[in-house]
Amino acid sequence: MSQVRIGMVGYKFMGKAHSNAYRVLPMFFPNSTVPQMKAICGRNQEALETARKQFGWEEAVTDWRELLKRDDIDLIDINAPSDAHKEIAIAAARAGKHIFCEKPLALTLSDAREMLAEAEAAGVKHMVGFNYRFAPAVQLAKKLIDEGRIGKINHFRGQFLQDWIMDPQFPLVWRLQKEIAGSGSLGDLGAHVIDMARYLVGEFSEVIGMSETFIKERPIAENMTGLSAKGGSSTEMGQVTVDDATLMMARFENGALGSIEATRFAGGHRCTNGFEINGSKGSVRFDFERMNELEVYFTDDAEDVQGFRRVLATDAPHAYMDAWWPAGHTIGYEHTFTHEMVELMDAITNDRQPVPNFVDGVKCQEVLEAVERSIEERRWVAISEM
Amino acid sequence: MSQVRIGMVGYKFMGKAHSNAYRVLPMFFPNSTVPQMKAICGRNQEALETARKQFGWEEAVTDWRELLKRDDIDLIDINAPSDAHKEIAIAAARAGKHIFCEKPLALTLSDAREMLAEAEAAGVKHMVGFNYRFAPAVQLAKKLIDEGRIGKINHFRGQFLQDWIMDPQFPLVWRLQKEIAGSGSLGDLGAHVIDMARYLVGEFSEVIGMSETFIKERPIAENMTGLSAKGGSSTEMGQVTVDDATLMMARFENGALGSIEATRFAGGHRCTNGFEINGSKGSVRFDFERMNELEVYFTDDAEDVQGFRRVLATDAPHAYMDAWWPAGHTIGYEHTFTHEMVELMDAITNDRQPVPNFVDGVKCQEVLEAVERSIEERRWVAISEM
Amino acid sequence: MSQVRIGMVGYKFMGKAHSNAYRVLPMFFPNSTVPQMKAICGRNQEALETARKQFGWEEAVTDWRELLKRDDIDLIDINAPSDAHKEIAIAAARAGKHIFCEKPLALTLSDAREMLAEAEAAGVKHMVGFNYRFAPAVQLAKKLIDEGRIGKINHFRGQFLQDWIMDPQFPLVWRLQKEIAGSGSLGDLGAHVIDMARYLVGEFSEVIGMSETFIKERPIAENMTGLSAKGGSSTEMGQVTVDDATLMMARFENGALGSIEATRFAGGHRCTNGFEINGSKGSVRFDFERMNELEVYFTDDAEDVQGFRRVLATDAPHAYMDAWWPAGHTIGYEHTFTHEMVELMDAITNDRQPVPNFVDGVKCQEVLEAVERSIEERRWVAISEM
Amino acid sequence: MSQVRIGMVGYKFMGKAHSNAYRVLPMFFPNSTVPQMKAICGRNQEALETARKQFGWEEAVTDWRELLKRDDIDLIDINAPSDAHKEIAIAAARAGKHIFCEKPLALTLSDAREMLAEAEAAGVKHMVGFNYRFAPAVQLAKKLIDEGRIGKINHFRGQFLQDWIMDPQFPLVWRLQKEIAGSGSLGDLGAHVIDMARYLVGEFSEVIGMSETFIKERPIAENMTGLSAKGGSSTEMGQVTVDDATLMMARFENGALGSIEATRFAGGHRCTNGFEINGSKGSVRFDFERMNELEVYFTDDAEDVQGFRRVLATDAPHAYMDAWWPAGHTIGYEHTFTHEMVELMDAITNDRQPVPNFVDGVKCQEVLEAVERSIEERRWVAISEM
Repeated sequence: MSQVRIGMVGYKFMGKAHSNAYRVLPMFFPNSTVPQMKAICGRNQEALETARKQFGWEEAVTDWRELLKRDDIDLIDINAPSDAHKEIAIAAARAGKHIFCEKPLALTLSDAREMLAEAEAAGVKHMVGFNYRFAPAVQLAKKLIDEGRIGKINHFRGQFLQDWIMDPQFPLVWRLQKEIAGSGSLGDLGAHVIDMARYLVGEFSEVIGMSETFIKERPIAENMTGLSAKGGSSTEMGQVTVDDATLMMARFENGALGSIEATRFAGGHRCTNGFEINGSKGSVRFDFERMNELEVYFTDDAEDVQGFRRVLATDAPHAYMDAWWPAGHTIGYEHTFTHEMVELMDAITNDRQPVPNFVDGVKCQEVLEAVERSIEERRWVAISEM
Repeated sequence: MSQVRIGMVGYKFMGKAHSNAYRVLPMFFPNSTVPQMKAICGRNQEALETARKQFGWEEAVTDWRELLKRDDIDLIDINAPSDAHKEIAIAAARAGKHIFCEKPLALTLSDAREMLAEAEAAGVKHMVGFNYRFAPAVQLAKKLIDEGRIGKINHFRGQFLQDWIMDPQFPLVWRLQKEIAGSGSLGDLGAHVIDMARYLVGEFSEVIGMSETFIKERPIAENMTGLSAKGGSSTEMGQVTVDDATLMMARFENGALGSIEATRFAGGHRCTNGFEINGSKGSVRFDFERMNELEVYFTDDAEDVQGFRRVLATDAPHAYMDAWWPAGHTIGYEHTFTHEMVELMDAITNDRQPVPNFVDGVKCQEVLEAVERSIEERRWVAISEM
Repeated sequence: MSQVRIGMVGYKFMGKAHSNAYRVLPMFFPNSTVPQMKAICGRNQEALETARKQFGWEEAVTDWRELLKRDDIDLIDINAPSDAHKEIAIAAARAGKHIFCEKPLALTLSDAREMLAEAEAAGVKHMVGFNYRFAPAVQLAKKLIDEGRIGKINHFRGQFLQDWIMDPQFPLVWRLQKEIAGSGSLGDLGAHVIDMARYLVGEFSEVIGMSETFIKERPIAENMTGLSAKGGSSTEMGQVTVDDATLMMARFENGALGSIEATRFAGGHRCTNGFEINGSKGSVRFDFERMNELEVYFTDDAEDVQGFRRVLATDAPHAYMDAWWPAGHTIGYEHTFTHEMVELMDAITNDRQPVPNFVDGVKCQEVLEAVERSIEERRWVAISEM
Repeated sequence: MSQVRIGMVGYKFMGKAHSNAYRVLPMFFPNSTVPQMKAICGRNQEALETARKQFGWEEAVTDWRELLKRDDIDLIDINAPSDAHKEIAIAAARAGKHIFCEKPLALTLSDAREMLAEAEAAGVKHMVGFNYRFAPAVQLAKKLIDEGRIGKINHFRGQFLQDWIMDPQFPLVWRLQKEIAGSGSLGDLGAHVIDMARYLVGEFSEVIGMSETFIKERPIAENMTGLSAKGGSSTEMGQVTVDDATLMMARFENGALGSIEATRFAGGHRCTNGFEINGSKGSVRFDFERMNELEVYFTDDAEDVQGFRRVLATDAPHAYMDAWWPAGHTIGYEHTFTHEMVELMDAITNDRQPVPNFVDGVKCQEVLEAVERSIEERRWVAISEM
């Protein structure tokens, strides 16, 4: 198979990111299987047609079910709002289509498990969109850990800090409504950190969380989709039904201790998706706002020159970077998606499951739901309870 | 009163820091009441005499009770190991002496309360050694918060990260023994962060913690006092009875959320005593390894130039700094003690309680003990329970 | 004109960067005139065909003169090695084609002037590839300066530091040969800094430089085109005929003082293309390795919170950024080219000269050549001499 | 000799810094010879007496010649304004006193040479106050270079950036008057960088400079001594006769290239006394505003973790640091003077010349004067010409 023919459901922020990845991939990864942009799907015909042209899809369809009936589509890319993931994914699996699904996989753990079961039963490839794994600096952290260069991990300290809804006049977009978004900062931001922790440290054993909604009512917006959504001139107010901030502590199966914080109220942080890991032989530190960098510390450096190194992960030795530009010439946010799609294409071509896949989506959801339960019941919750 | 005559109990790390502060103070704060270094006290006569000469005390005595009998001593400075604080402090209060006591005030909350009650009953001045409050950059954070320039506080994120006992061969010094130290990273490091949180954010409402001892046995050392204590060639092993790391989450009375981490296993962090506070109008960020700097963010900066500012708190507008050097000429760790003693001298002179005092010591201990109970009972513990 | 039909000469590093920009532009700047990728041109037919497919050009031709004869090509994009720029550009101008030419415009000032004269005589649009101007953080610096928010400029401190040829075994690629490259670090790296200085500060008045070739002989490589060019197993040595490093001091027409350094021997610097500008009311600071950031200082900030701000130029208020991702989601090196091509398309559409154009190329060359003369003659050289 | 009895001439900024060093030294370096603070000397009797008490000197004298006559004084510490250095130093030498002289050694090279000749003829110890050498992070740079761990040096990039006189209303203090200060930013700031370059890289071979006085007239101040000198309410204006900023390029005897900038007009820089050195095997980078840190890069680090390390030079392996606090507990500006005086005491005790001494003062002055000549004559000046 030299091409994977794609039908994509959703055409907003993530739809744009995925489309860009599909477009860019063949030029920079010429040995990869080519993603063919067959059809884009959405409900608003006019907006959809605009997106189709702009993003470069061959066709536009308003009913995603049509995509499943077609023989010329191999893969369904789901980036519609979170409440639509389950139905589409299961139908896609039953139709024998491979599936790429944005995170969070589903609104609930049981939904996520159902999706995984169906995908496995159908024997299709399934992937979930934890794109931050694919920053070369994160890949370097993974490599150092896997090679034992950081030693036994004792601490994981993760956070995803943003500040885009601090203004009380910021409107009530769909991401602030539980019935569509599932949860707030926890599912949107915390999910990325939880996945990062699983990727780099291992499985969670038990968790306890706390959360808060600082601004409890907001103006109802006309356009509810954006991340910036300015100018909602409405004076009608609606209830915010998700968390503005969630914190958690965790114990990992390997004995490491973890703390995670996800908030949209950290003034000055536009996108601080970061972590620090301390092992018995060293430490690594990452901040997505400087995504080309990994800070690395080794306990066995000569004693007069010990210190965190700022590694610019843009050289050829770093994952994916020989495909791009010379050393020191940085890449950006969108490249994480391109790398993600390289993994997806490679997995389909070589008949293996891509990583991260629905198993990772389910395991992340287990942790998310354990955190929610721990908040509700004000107690430590073991992942095994879930 | 133009002089305060001091008897100091303890002559190790903290004894050195305090002595230096007393010596340096009159030169840089010539309008301050002068601390007079009357007598230093310790049990090992030879080592004590060495310290006396080196630090510049007039006399050396081996029994602290003698200090209390003397008329020519106004203030007892207690920096002996933590298990000795209570007895000395109470006796000093009863003898009508003012008291400066290093943190933690006591090994237990009830001991701390007893100390406070005795000091209050005796009508003496009492101060507790939370020296980090006195870094000018921290004072700036306090000022910005008090003036409302950060707005309503939503988040406190504090940590004290060190790495000095990561080597399993590091010996079993007294700080790793519960009966002397009370606790490990929690009481030694976490106490400073808890105090900082109280100082800057306000009172804690409820907490939950977790802790771990990563290295459970260590070589027994001959010299058990040091912070570096290398070369314990002993092969006999002893039990580590305190926590290597403690994490906690907290809710403050004013609704802010907090997370605090104290660990001695964070490779690459020699002394990362730091915090970040996010308010509705801005944020502040501090790391003691760069103690002259405070990072400050304001939400109402012009929208094209928003970002954390690195404020070098070495100019005249910053607390205490007109006493030292020109702008940009930094100060160090020891200066926090000098400023602390300026506050102490000023309070005694003006017949007011210094800040922080035993009330702060008790309140810090309440939080520490609540954290310990929450770890033991695996549940949220309200400070009001204590 | 809703499309600009392009013929591109050159298909290596810059050819790849330009191609990517042309491909990406229509998706993120849907209101822009569309660059149509008609024909790519190079001498090695096999390599060219590979590039054509990979980059997505309609046709491949091995003689650039063919491009000039065609009616369906509006713009010639010249990114062949520097020694070929002049001939192609002049022929293109005479054929009535618009021209985009990579920097340096030519190997000599007189060549550059000839190119400009021919382009002006032909009435075509002409642009030169100083892509770093188009980083949004640089655009912010420009905006702050133009709005007077930095005040009168006193200092420009620029450098372009790399380390890719520090290994004496690194082969003698074309960039190290004067007859092809014109000069070494000066023309390759320094030219970018000189252009940045002109863009942000204004015209140079006089300069004096110094330069050095640290490694005077290198192995002759089989593949002479790369920036990394590893594995030249040859033992035959050839002469390095360009500068490894060049430094200069400058006076600007507006009275500002400047210093510029360009070197390929600054270990640890992969691509430190940076500058700091100090004005009477503030300062700005940029480092391309962190290209999404501009550090900004204002003298009129409140005196207790003065300090450099780290502005993450990824929000909507920053140039070009509303086309990309939400706040805090960074972009990379290649985006500078996309923005450059947006300017080019816009200029052609609106019948105006793009900026920077051949005038900027000539003025940059004046400074470069003045620096070279100042090195040769060991004296200050006025730009007016050139 | 277990004590060195000191007479100090000058009691302002440097007088305070030296006094503090003498006071602090015995406590932290108990094995050092003790500096005994015999007499302080200045012209204003009242201010002098205040300083005497505050700084802790035994006596105050208003005529420095008296100090030279006394048998109980071993060392003359000269930190009066620069125009007084020569006369006092020569008289002190002739009186057989050891000499510590603040930089710049003298107003002219010939004066400096005379001072050296006299000191050598008298056989006394002589030291010059280049205190920045004594920051432990700078000592680490020196150690790495001396051990060959940075390889052959190719680049030195030094600067001393301040901003304290940017305000045109800042008064005409003595540091802005050529007849007292000798020169402006060049002699005050540049001298430190030139000394640092000599210390770390080696001797200068040739230089060329440029300079500017941005603000040519300033209000005449009543109090002309300060570094901040606010509130000169005078409306009478006087001529600024020194440089506000001086830049230079240099070639070193070992072939390295250098650039140095000294300015008091770099907004946002309170005290950026910094350098970067690039060698064939690595780089080091220092900024005095973060004086406890040295950034270090090695070319032979594993290729996937290459990057500048931030070494916190506060551990026992670093020079002088075992005398102070535990790892990570920083020191400040004043500590450079304490270390300087440790060197001075040790040299006198062991009958050797301290380093840096008048030879270093002279060589620094050679470079300063060569720079001045190069500015005047607008040409490269060889140090051998001087």
